[in-house]
Amino acid sequence: MTDTAEFPPDDDPGRDGGPAGWLTPEDLAAARAQLPLVYVDAVPVRVDESGDVVAVGLLLRATPLGSMTRALVTGRVLYHERVRDALLRHIEKDLGPVALPQVPASPQPFTIAEYFPTPGITPFHDPRQHAISLAYVVPVAGDCRPQHNALDLAWLTPEEACSDTVQAEMVNGQGTLVRQAMAHVGRLD
Amino acid sequence: MTDTAEFPPDDDPGRDGGPAGWLTPEDLAAARAQLPLVYVDAVPVRVDESGDVVAVGLLLRATPLGSMTRALVTGRVLYHERVRDALLRHIEKDLGPVALPQVPASPQPFTIAEYFPTPGITPFHDPRQHAISLAYVVPVAGDCRPQHNALDLAWLTPEEACSDTVQAEMVNGQGTLVRQAMAHVGRLD
Amino acid sequence: MTDTAEFPPDDDPGRDGGPAGWLTPEDLAAARAQLPLVYVDAVPVRVDESGDVVAVGLLLRATPLGSMTRALVTGRVLYHERVRDALLRHIEKDLGPVALPQVPASPQPFTIAEYFPTPGITPFHDPRQHAISLAYVVPVAGDCRPQHNALDLAWLTPEEACSDTVQAEMVNGQGTLVRQAMAHVGRLD
Amino acid sequence: MTDTAEFPPDDDPGRDGGPAGWLTPEDLAAARAQLPLVYVDAVPVRVDESGDVVAVGLLLRATPLGSMTRALVTGRVLYHERVRDALLRHIEKDLGPVALPQVPASPQPFTIAEYFPTPGITPFHDPRQHAISLAYVVPVAGDCRPQHNALDLAWLTPEEACSDTVQAEMVNGQGTLVRQAMAHVGRLD
Repeated sequence: MTDTAEFPPDDDPGRDGGPAGWLTPEDLAAARAQLPLVYVDAVPVRVDESGDVVAVGLLLRATPLGSMTRALVTGRVLYHERVRDALLRHIEKDLGPVALPQVPASPQPFTIAEYFPTPGITPFHDPRQHAISLAYVVPVAGDCRPQHNALDLAWLTPEEACSDTVQAEMVNGQGTLVRQAMAHVGRLD
Repeated sequence: MTDTAEFPPDDDPGRDGGPAGWLTPEDLAAARAQLPLVYVDAVPVRVDESGDVVAVGLLLRATPLGSMTRALVTGRVLYHERVRDALLRHIEKDLGPVALPQVPASPQPFTIAEYFPTPGITPFHDPRQHAISLAYVVPVAGDCRPQHNALDLAWLTPEEACSDTVQAEMVNGQGTLVRQAMAHVGRLD
Repeated sequence: MTDTAEFPPDDDPGRDGGPAGWLTPEDLAAARAQLPLVYVDAVPVRVDESGDVVAVGLLLRATPLGSMTRALVTGRVLYHERVRDALLRHIEKDLGPVALPQVPASPQPFTIAEYFPTPGITPFHDPRQHAISLAYVVPVAGDCRPQHNALDLAWLTPEEACSDTVQAEMVNGQGTLVRQAMAHVGRLD
Repeated sequence: MTDTAEFPPDDDPGRDGGPAGWLTPEDLAAARAQLPLVYVDAVPVRVDESGDVVAVGLLLRATPLGSMTRALVTGRVLYHERVRDALLRHIEKDLGPVALPQVPASPQPFTIAEYFPTPGITPFHDPRQHAISLAYVVPVAGDCRPQHNALDLAWLTPEEACSDTVQAEMVNGQGTLVRQAMAHVGRLD
């Protein structure tokens, strides 16, 4: 959730005029105030040949105030878009076109992250909106290059990604989501 | 999805004037044409003392044309509502106030059912909208009485619920969802 | 795994002469040296009316050296025993006959804990054997009383159960398993 | 389970003299009569670029009586072997060394198949033993060639794999397991 919270999202087609059927900025703002929106969160990972997770990819972004945050790949599911296509689109948006993601065969997410505009109801918070996010661990086999508003993509070990230092650099509960993902893949420290 | 497709949904607060912050019918109609909506599907089951599913509860409804359909408990997640509270609300709406549902401890659904307005993209279809539904199996321990527009609630064995006869009485892919649920609990015939 | 590692397990029928078909102590010892054994781990929890986990039950045990450890409900799956019956049997063994456990409807565990006799291969370790454990979160609604070799059963909040203090009181990786369970139910701190 | 039920399994190191620590045929036979054994079942699938399952790989085998059966990749987890390494080993054994399997990052299986020596307790049956099998869907990206006692490997669409004709060619409940897998990946017909 951090990307669009802190930067004008150039990935959201409705914002700058997309195909017919997408929302105008005003319509999206109105909907955001009254409906939960559907999001996906992807935790990009490197796996070894036995499928074991060896690294987690976190995007590095600058906030308007100049501090740094780390973030997952995240974004909205569009009207008439399949969840797996939304995952692919946001991974390509953030990691580039040759990341070679292996989107899971099953639509079953490892968890549902409920981002509330009010802090404290769940570990997840999004000041802009109520977002219900389907969270997946996605192995990427190719070359990843941060796109758009990300300064860098860092590959951390599961232990590093769960460390206090890195957790302190994540906002809106995404640190918790990373640890939930590492728990799911058996790599919670 | 069948309930609100075929009957004016008296459970949808926006339709007949709900608390502030809920959508007017016009707003909801506009959003439905442009955003995927978040739903929950609950498969109500009876379990024995070892947790094994022994029966599936299906609602019986009459269509405007007079035919009968069977349906799951389903409905929209409202703004600022937790998924588990939406599950509870829709189960109470359809099964009554003393059904004693055991909402799963984990938010991980057994699948995501993507209901598209266009048939054939997934097994799920909703002519009104694009709905992304989080699907859960929910044991109910109490007394269940169909409410509102349901004529009856029938408890079927897993085998009966997956039979061709019963499957033919379900619409919009909910028969598939029942069989996915039975596969998940190890009771697919 | 801690129970039988540190105490003669009076719950293991083969040890003190069980029904025909169960292993003698010598046979079980031989098998333990050559085959992975099937275990279940149950994380007993209290849930509120919406299914949200509010407390985790941990058994308090004394080691032969007089220190205290906290442990989950755990034990072997017997020949010709269903996994859900093994869960029930071990929960009754450790929490007493009126714990009223709600064994999950689905056989899908939240994780597989692989306890190796060699430390460091996974987070889980069992010096006696290679145990492959199917791990489940099990809500219990009734009155729980520690049985046999447990001194006490303590109900902790998810935050307390994941705290450094409590984690330090768990052995063989069960602290990690508790945190994996809390991650799965959305209550990882 | 069908492979070793019907043919001397040349993949089981204990049978023909493996590394120290593995069981002799007599020991394995004794253990099989008294302990549940740990197995893995892999459902090999082809996925498209969005991760959607487009084909299921089934092995074709001849029974001693000359009829044909279709089977999944299956086999025992050895002492001190990780579940993911057992999956890799059995996939390589059955599909050859360049199948390029993508073993799931998470150890969470989509189901547990409990094969009992007594038919009818679960949908799964193994006349030789009580086997508790962790079941995974495994995408394979490479060239697959049936090995050992398999005559052929056929790629079927999910619909074909769930059809009555193909289901009738599977034994011991593996047809049910295929349909459970297709339900899990959202491709149950």
